[in-house]
Amino acid sequence: MIIVLKHGATKEEIDHVVQKIKEHGLTPHVSEGKERTIIGVIGDERTIQNLPLSIFPGVDKVMPILSPYKLVSREFKSDDTLVTVGQDRKIQVGGKRLHVMAGPCAVESLERLMTVAEAVKASGATILRGGAFKPRTSPHTFQGLGAEGLEHLVEARKKTGLPIVTEVVDTRDVELVARQADILQIGTRNMQNFQLLIEVGQTNKPVLLKRGLSATIKEFLLAAEYMMKGGNHQVILCERGIRTFETQTRNTLDLAAVPVLKSLSHLPVIVDPSHATGKWELVAPMAKAAIAAGADGLMIEVHANPEEALSDGEESLKPPKFHAMMQELKKIAAAVGREL
Amino acid sequence: MIIVLKHGATKEEIDHVVQKIKEHGLTPHVSEGKERTIIGVIGDERTIQNLPLSIFPGVDKVMPILSPYKLVSREFKSDDTLVTVGQDRKIQVGGKRLHVMAGPCAVESLERLMTVAEAVKASGATILRGGAFKPRTSPHTFQGLGAEGLEHLVEARKKTGLPIVTEVVDTRDVELVARQADILQIGTRNMQNFQLLIEVGQTNKPVLLKRGLSATIKEFLLAAEYMMKGGNHQVILCERGIRTFETQTRNTLDLAAVPVLKSLSHLPVIVDPSHATGKWELVAPMAKAAIAAGADGLMIEVHANPEEALSDGEESLKPPKFHAMMQELKKIAAAVGREL
Amino acid sequence: MIIVLKHGATKEEIDHVVQKIKEHGLTPHVSEGKERTIIGVIGDERTIQNLPLSIFPGVDKVMPILSPYKLVSREFKSDDTLVTVGQDRKIQVGGKRLHVMAGPCAVESLERLMTVAEAVKASGATILRGGAFKPRTSPHTFQGLGAEGLEHLVEARKKTGLPIVTEVVDTRDVELVARQADILQIGTRNMQNFQLLIEVGQTNKPVLLKRGLSATIKEFLLAAEYMMKGGNHQVILCERGIRTFETQTRNTLDLAAVPVLKSLSHLPVIVDPSHATGKWELVAPMAKAAIAAGADGLMIEVHANPEEALSDGEESLKPPKFHAMMQELKKIAAAVGREL
Amino acid sequence: MIIVLKHGATKEEIDHVVQKIKEHGLTPHVSEGKERTIIGVIGDERTIQNLPLSIFPGVDKVMPILSPYKLVSREFKSDDTLVTVGQDRKIQVGGKRLHVMAGPCAVESLERLMTVAEAVKASGATILRGGAFKPRTSPHTFQGLGAEGLEHLVEARKKTGLPIVTEVVDTRDVELVARQADILQIGTRNMQNFQLLIEVGQTNKPVLLKRGLSATIKEFLLAAEYMMKGGNHQVILCERGIRTFETQTRNTLDLAAVPVLKSLSHLPVIVDPSHATGKWELVAPMAKAAIAAGADGLMIEVHANPEEALSDGEESLKPPKFHAMMQELKKIAAAVGREL
Repeated sequence: MIIVLKHGATKEEIDHVVQKIKEHGLTPHVSEGKERTIIGVIGDERTIQNLPLSIFPGVDKVMPILSPYKLVSREFKSDDTLVTVGQDRKIQVGGKRLHVMAGPCAVESLERLMTVAEAVKASGATILRGGAFKPRTSPHTFQGLGAEGLEHLVEARKKTGLPIVTEVVDTRDVELVARQADILQIGTRNMQNFQLLIEVGQTNKPVLLKRGLSATIKEFLLAAEYMMKGGNHQVILCERGIRTFETQTRNTLDLAAVPVLKSLSHLPVIVDPSHATGKWELVAPMAKAAIAAGADGLMIEVHANPEEALSDGEESLKPPKFHAMMQELKKIAAAVGREL
Repeated sequence: MIIVLKHGATKEEIDHVVQKIKEHGLTPHVSEGKERTIIGVIGDERTIQNLPLSIFPGVDKVMPILSPYKLVSREFKSDDTLVTVGQDRKIQVGGKRLHVMAGPCAVESLERLMTVAEAVKASGATILRGGAFKPRTSPHTFQGLGAEGLEHLVEARKKTGLPIVTEVVDTRDVELVARQADILQIGTRNMQNFQLLIEVGQTNKPVLLKRGLSATIKEFLLAAEYMMKGGNHQVILCERGIRTFETQTRNTLDLAAVPVLKSLSHLPVIVDPSHATGKWELVAPMAKAAIAAGADGLMIEVHANPEEALSDGEESLKPPKFHAMMQELKKIAAAVGREL
Repeated sequence: MIIVLKHGATKEEIDHVVQKIKEHGLTPHVSEGKERTIIGVIGDERTIQNLPLSIFPGVDKVMPILSPYKLVSREFKSDDTLVTVGQDRKIQVGGKRLHVMAGPCAVESLERLMTVAEAVKASGATILRGGAFKPRTSPHTFQGLGAEGLEHLVEARKKTGLPIVTEVVDTRDVELVARQADILQIGTRNMQNFQLLIEVGQTNKPVLLKRGLSATIKEFLLAAEYMMKGGNHQVILCERGIRTFETQTRNTLDLAAVPVLKSLSHLPVIVDPSHATGKWELVAPMAKAAIAAGADGLMIEVHANPEEALSDGEESLKPPKFHAMMQELKKIAAAVGREL
Repeated sequence: MIIVLKHGATKEEIDHVVQKIKEHGLTPHVSEGKERTIIGVIGDERTIQNLPLSIFPGVDKVMPILSPYKLVSREFKSDDTLVTVGQDRKIQVGGKRLHVMAGPCAVESLERLMTVAEAVKASGATILRGGAFKPRTSPHTFQGLGAEGLEHLVEARKKTGLPIVTEVVDTRDVELVARQADILQIGTRNMQNFQLLIEVGQTNKPVLLKRGLSATIKEFLLAAEYMMKGGNHQVILCERGIRTFETQTRNTLDLAAVPVLKSLSHLPVIVDPSHATGKWELVAPMAKAAIAAGADGLMIEVHANPEEALSDGEESLKPPKFHAMMQELKKIAAAVGREL
């Protein structure tokens, strides 16, 4: 940590900061520059990251040198984490092989779910997605089937063999969902629902953590850190678009986040082009771009009849379009040395 | 709702949309323009707001006419809602008299809390704020005292007579916090934690709902709608800064949201300049601006010794500065015909 | 255009709007809904797009149906525009073959420019980029060589045969730059320098128009419309990142803008991953993603010795890295049915 | 400047950075921390602010300590700059007395201009605003009267005695506008039109510099620095809203920028609530808030008949509403110890 003093800071002010640093067991190193005096802090700055040094008299600004997260970082673990999914543990997210999680936005009925599950499996998806507990912006719209939806997913897994990923939105549901699902999804609106992160961090199931709508990459990694601190190191990061001023797409897909995350962290990174764009015709081009940018997989919304979908029909692909996209993705995967 | 068809939409495509609208009990009204055909929908469009009409063949775009919220709107209730606070029900937020909620970011000890509580009361604050359950961006920082902090707040209320407002961050804590606190606070990171909104909507305690970091005004009102739909109509809205590209302040305080919210909704609106700016020296100018813009009150962080604060020391006012600010605020309040 | 009236709008208010629409030669169509009366406008709404109907008494909101641009739109011209570049007119941007414009951020000397020009040509770039007139955020940094830099570019073209693209930043320079360069670049900070757009719109040279730092796609297309209205239809659009809250990259590359622009407009679209990310190590992944997303080409900064670059050294590729990237791009191009 | 090295940076890498710093005449100070080695740079870091040290081998990041601007800063000049306006030099912007610049968005005719000019003068405005050269987003809308509009403004000044402020949008017009106007306005879209800034910096007329739509405060101050470097120190800064995701207002008025700018710089700061909000009914509350926040003045759009305005009718106040607002502003001004 570097503490920059104001032009004209007094000796008393400098001494006050120096003493406070020493109190916390760190070593201050005062250096008088031409225009400013600066104090370098030797030691683990994380022990004082909470100290409001910027308001100490004479202090101009405080510049941390270390990142605030640790367990998620490449420095902590240099090799890529592989997240193992499913009862037979055959799927590894983060390796050479890409994985596509596909299925309906919301589970609407067992029949509709089965239709999609079989279709996406036939096209090469390896994990089935589907929302049972749905967070909806308006209280006046379909809220999901809840526990019943979860049972439909379990049934679909039994019939297709596809592991299932589904969202958990309430600390009270974590135990139930962790017992049934293969991957627990933390949705974008809950990325900083810290109680939920803590609870999920204590399960032994892989977690799919979606980036918050306006979360910085640093905050995104800190959210993963919450779960890793609790003991759950099986975290998959998911870029799904951030909020900007542009309204032609529902969100702005931040694909540069993929290589940035992979350089800062050892965790696998997938991309959700369906929620990012909110328009089905943009899903395929953005899915291709995501793979080209280095993503380890994708999450795609598929619905047999989007016109009848109870949520997110706008961005859902019909099975034939999903199938065609998967063929194109295979070519892109090969072009970047991956398999699909 | 207006449905704009693509240039060259066929009769079949138009008929398909028309029929779907009729199926939902609404009346379509087709109008052929010079360049485009449009279909107006007569009836309560909220019954089809979930229908993905934009992906129907031949449809270019769908434009809703009504707002997606109802109970929070001025059209539903034209006169200002007064939120009554405290056991003796003497405080009314939303009336001519402004209310200032002040106190530490986090409850750190009973002694520290009492010092601040007495100071802010002496300066004119009418409600005591303090965090017991703290949502923190990093898992490595102080997480709040929890239930013990809540007890300290209750004790401070007993001694000062000030009603207390504190955050609830977990559905499992709602009952406890609702039993003890006078106002339940929903923090910015939980504005779209819908399960929490639903749970809080079933209590009979006033709620302070903070705007999400990147929530639009529409989403903010829909979050309030969640609680009102559950039966709790005692909601206070709180503008606390939104996330933008500017980094000189922690967030960008959107003061225009105050008159906008008050024109769209009947609910009272207060402003939190402490979290919005993240810098104590900006709190007083922004507090004054908030009152001038028409806010019904303020939420301010005060700490007896910010250098020692376990969270948000950067933005906390010392009691003497808070006192001075309150004197200035009285003048602004008078200038806009309010009382403080 | 649809005009939505307020709940309770009077007959006088409705008549006032109706009459105003008629005065402009358009036909109003009044429709009384359950909750609101709406007025549809039949005719070319662009003739009243400037009329502030939203402030007319009784009016709630005004919803345009047509886009405000015309010449740039797919409706105006359905087939892709090919922009022909260079004296021998062999290069066509917008066709099956992708084009990469590469070179230094700023022209620093003839010698340095030649080194890079020959290197990028050898690796497959077909157009040479280089800044002579540089817009710089700070007045205390290198401002470009100006006319001398332009001469170096002309010299490099003579020796390599590569057409040159360079920025013009002042209406007074348009004639000079249009005489020398093969493509005139309008930089991101000048996307709404309307005088410059008008001036460039009167030349007969192709234009590379960069998206403004916070320009919506609609504004971007309107900027192109300015030049097309002046008679210059040879416009290449360039996505180069927008400003968001994320600070890990200099800007956020909005790749979804590529398919969106290509659906709304007939103009070719290229991507500049160098400026978008501001970090050389992100250039290759984002270049690959851009091609996968459907871009018609790229603009890449290359410098023989980035450590010595007078501007944007952080994001410049060394020739060997550029060469390696071009090999990878060829595979992606093939995977999406394009050539490079 | 602080240079943070990567974990595991080699001695050769450190020496390479050290040598480069010495080459530029500065003194490196190497300090080995527990986790990282850092290099402090002693001397005027502005001489190396252009050096891409972040890409040197072994370097993790570079943290500047000094601001990139100098002449605009409080450190360079600690007392407030007063900008003197008008031929009789009686108006000083930046002192105890607030100044309101009011008038139509665009000059439409001499007659309309005179009506407004006399009205705003009667209500207490001290400077007349009006656009002759108009930057418009669409080429299909009214583009201003140009030189004729400028003559109308001169005529209005003659008749009312009010100094005039008007925008200049082209380097070729600077001489003309500087000869006629009392204040040259640089519009938001031209804040980084550096050629225009340089040209205006060489005139001896006060400048009103509007913040760019997505300009950071640092970039805003650097734009002012451009003009001050050219010799023109009479710069008034104008906050006018920034672009965010919120669409209820045209832009988001960043009022915290007012106290931030006044702490970083000695230049006066005014606020334009008309363009910031885009809605006339929000102008008065935001004008009041701006004064409460410490602004030195306001810029307000007034039109005798907004329904007929050729631009920005939505946000223009009618003279009676402007008059009423001025009365309210006087009370706010008094409450913060200012005069109006």
